[in-house]
Amino acid sequence: MVEKGLKKTNGLGVQVENTKICVVMVGLPARGKSLIAQKVTRYLKWLSIEAKVFNVGTYRRTDTPKPTADFFDTNNPAGEKMRRAAAEAALSDMLKWFRAGEGTIAILDATNSTRVRRRWIYDECTKEGIDTLFVESRCDDERLIMANILEVKTTSPDYQGTDPEAAALDFRNRIRNYEKVYETVDGDGDEKDLTYVKIMNIGAQVIINQIHDYLQSRIVYYLMNLHIKPRSIWLSRHGESMYNLSGQIGGDAELSSRGKQYALKLPELVRQSVGDGRPLTVWTSTLRRAISTGAHLPANYNQLQWKALDELDAGVCDGLTYADIKEKYPEDFAARDEDKYNYRYRGGESYRDVVIRLESIIMELERSEDILIITHQAVLRCIYAYYKEKSQSESPWMAVPLHTLIKLTPKAYGTHEERTAAGIDAVSTWRGKGSVAKHEDPVGEPTF
Amino acid sequence: MVEKGLKKTNGLGVQVENTKICVVMVGLPARGKSLIAQKVTRYLKWLSIEAKVFNVGTYRRTDTPKPTADFFDTNNPAGEKMRRAAAEAALSDMLKWFRAGEGTIAILDATNSTRVRRRWIYDECTKEGIDTLFVESRCDDERLIMANILEVKTTSPDYQGTDPEAAALDFRNRIRNYEKVYETVDGDGDEKDLTYVKIMNIGAQVIINQIHDYLQSRIVYYLMNLHIKPRSIWLSRHGESMYNLSGQIGGDAELSSRGKQYALKLPELVRQSVGDGRPLTVWTSTLRRAISTGAHLPANYNQLQWKALDELDAGVCDGLTYADIKEKYPEDFAARDEDKYNYRYRGGESYRDVVIRLESIIMELERSEDILIITHQAVLRCIYAYYKEKSQSESPWMAVPLHTLIKLTPKAYGTHEERTAAGIDAVSTWRGKGSVAKHEDPVGEPTF
Repeated sequence: MVEKGLKKTNGLGVQVENTKICVVMVGLPARGKSLIAQKVTRYLKWLSIEAKVFNVGTYRRTDTPKPTADFFDTNNPAGEKMRRAAAEAALSDMLKWFRAGEGTIAILDATNSTRVRRRWIYDECTKEGIDTLFVESRCDDERLIMANILEVKTTSPDYQGTDPEAAALDFRNRIRNYEKVYETVDGDGDEKDLTYVKIMNIGAQVIINQIHDYLQSRIVYYLMNLHIKPRSIWLSRHGESMYNLSGQIGGDAELSSRGKQYALKLPELVRQSVGDGRPLTVWTSTLRRAISTGAHLPANYNQLQWKALDELDAGVCDGLTYADIKEKYPEDFAARDEDKYNYRYRGGESYRDVVIRLESIIMELERSEDILIITHQAVLRCIYAYYKEKSQSESPWMAVPLHTLIKLTPKAYGTHEERTAAGIDAVSTWRGKGSVAKHEDPVGEPTF
Repeated sequence: MVEKGLKKTNGLGVQVENTKICVVMVGLPARGKSLIAQKVTRYLKWLSIEAKVFNVGTYRRTDTPKPTADFFDTNNPAGEKMRRAAAEAALSDMLKWFRAGEGTIAILDATNSTRVRRRWIYDECTKEGIDTLFVESRCDDERLIMANILEVKTTSPDYQGTDPEAAALDFRNRIRNYEKVYETVDGDGDEKDLTYVKIMNIGAQVIINQIHDYLQSRIVYYLMNLHIKPRSIWLSRHGESMYNLSGQIGGDAELSSRGKQYALKLPELVRQSVGDGRPLTVWTSTLRRAISTGAHLPANYNQLQWKALDELDAGVCDGLTYADIKEKYPEDFAARDEDKYNYRYRGGESYRDVVIRLESIIMELERSEDILIITHQAVLRCIYAYYKEKSQSESPWMAVPLHTLIKLTPKAYGTHEERTAAGIDAVSTWRGKGSVAKHEDPVGEPTF
């Protein structure tokens, strides 16, 4: 494709060259701020938008690794001074990162619980041409707060080696010290011109104020769709297809006889993994091999076909083998191996293009509860890369075996994974760099 | 494509079979409620989601065509009774519409300014399994209110034949009567479990409460992105291409010599239409003929390539003429003429598919100010259909001449259109039903 000197667009399909946004988290301890910061960062990086979290607690820990609750009492001038120093260090590093020109979105993860503190951040950013987006997480649901305290007391470096009950008590006292001085964003209206989002009980209520920028609006839409109910996502490639056997790519072939066996086995695999009686929604692509793979699933599973889940479009190479491609289009073959994520087939797509069209799928996954997705190698790699934070250099080369059910369960920090092989043989469709083999075994790093 | 008994998906790519939502507008007169109701309806219908506005004022007018302000005084029992009757008639018709099974989203356009009234609507809907989404439009920007009063006094049937100044005065008194009893949604918290959106000054602040459903979340995202600053959208097809000359469809051909002339002329056409010094952003597809058409535009126009703007993918028919298609795929040729909007080329796309991928473009257009889009016949038809409310049976057959700049300006009710022909000859790429002519002149209804 002709690219007339334009910068590569990211996964939102827009240029963000001149955009610099500091997302300023606001909220008492145990309100899910770090969880939100980490999810937004993962989402943005998946979309090729440079994002980084600056966590003030990490800076504070270099001087004060294990503070007790009274460190956070505003009547403790020594504690106050050190906390201020940590905030200054984090902000200073963030500004350096922006000045270096690589960053688009920084997330300042701290309580930022007073108007004075927020005004200072706003002023420092504005001086350098950085927009601010304040994201306040509020919570009055005691179960959510308790779950968060449980998480912190067992995982926070602040309480490493501390008795969990003592840790929980101390952490509650820390929260109380913050509550004494906490000021909600726009509490008395003098922050009414700030660009901000307030999230109540993660997803229950959202207040959005003065959003003008496109990227800000996308972040806000993502935040709107978050929920924290437990759920899993199951991923499967279609069963082995006739094209898989012949080593052809693309097309709309039907399943091979072994592929049909997998389709017959899938309901059992799913039932074992999901559990009886749990409702499941099934998404497939619009291609025969994916639809046929889901054909024997229980009738009470709602099924839905998405064109966005169709395989990466190989354009003029559709229906060819890799040997054909190397022979007919040697330059393209080499260019693809050189930069597989960005290479766009003539008249077709790149992995980058696939991520753009999967953005709506990811957004819908964030909103949803249990979903089973039956799709294709490249598409599955892109979805997997989102959940498991795989880089663009790595994800297009990952091995995704046929006839295997993958269960992903998002947790507070990271995504838990389980895999179940159906025990039905299938060819390998993995291909190493430079290879034109019809079928070869994955080599190198243990993938997936 | 295999469609295993699944319902057609709409432009959001999801099934909405069992969804029934009543969008209940809330707000004082002159707060843009009808404008919002009409925009949301147009957006949904473009996405193949059945939507209809039920305007209580229209029902009230059958009995009381030209009320004066005192009709709206709550101390006027006769007026109160008739207004209540109008609300009941509108709601009753809405429920009938849902019961008939055709509708997905109804918009109840009225002030619905008291908690009692809203609770009644909520209860009536809940009884019938209809979800409610309350959309409150608030406004304290006097310029916005004045602009709205100006609109009403000159266009409302209530004031037909009334002196404009007298109309404005009466309308202000009507607003005052509503203000006396107005209760904001969740004003004292007993509406906190309702699903609602509050919009302040159209776009400045949005409060979103208890959104669970996917369609609700899409409507809310659309509402979030609305603004009412004046702006225009310019549309142009690429210049005449080599494939246009030979009557081939799809491909990635370069411009013909007349197409190149158009590209050279386009900056002047645009300057005349846009005016000097007004900044413009240019969006093109990723295809050569579109990019080349924008190549001579001023360097200070920001240019952006969207894959979502690429021409409808003709799949196996890419590069063929219509005569070729009729010969090679006679059944497909006939099927496409039968239902052009829904026909999906083998391995390619339908108009419906194009609308799905254009949804993000429309959302971004709603957020944006002045934009020039250089794209392709089918894509332009879909974008045009959104702004001008063209039906699915009509839009795929519209004539969109080459070498013509179209300016669309959204107004409160409808979209104003201007067209400027470049005066450079080009073939016609319009095709009548059943025809295999390489080039023919558009016939029938004056299109566009």
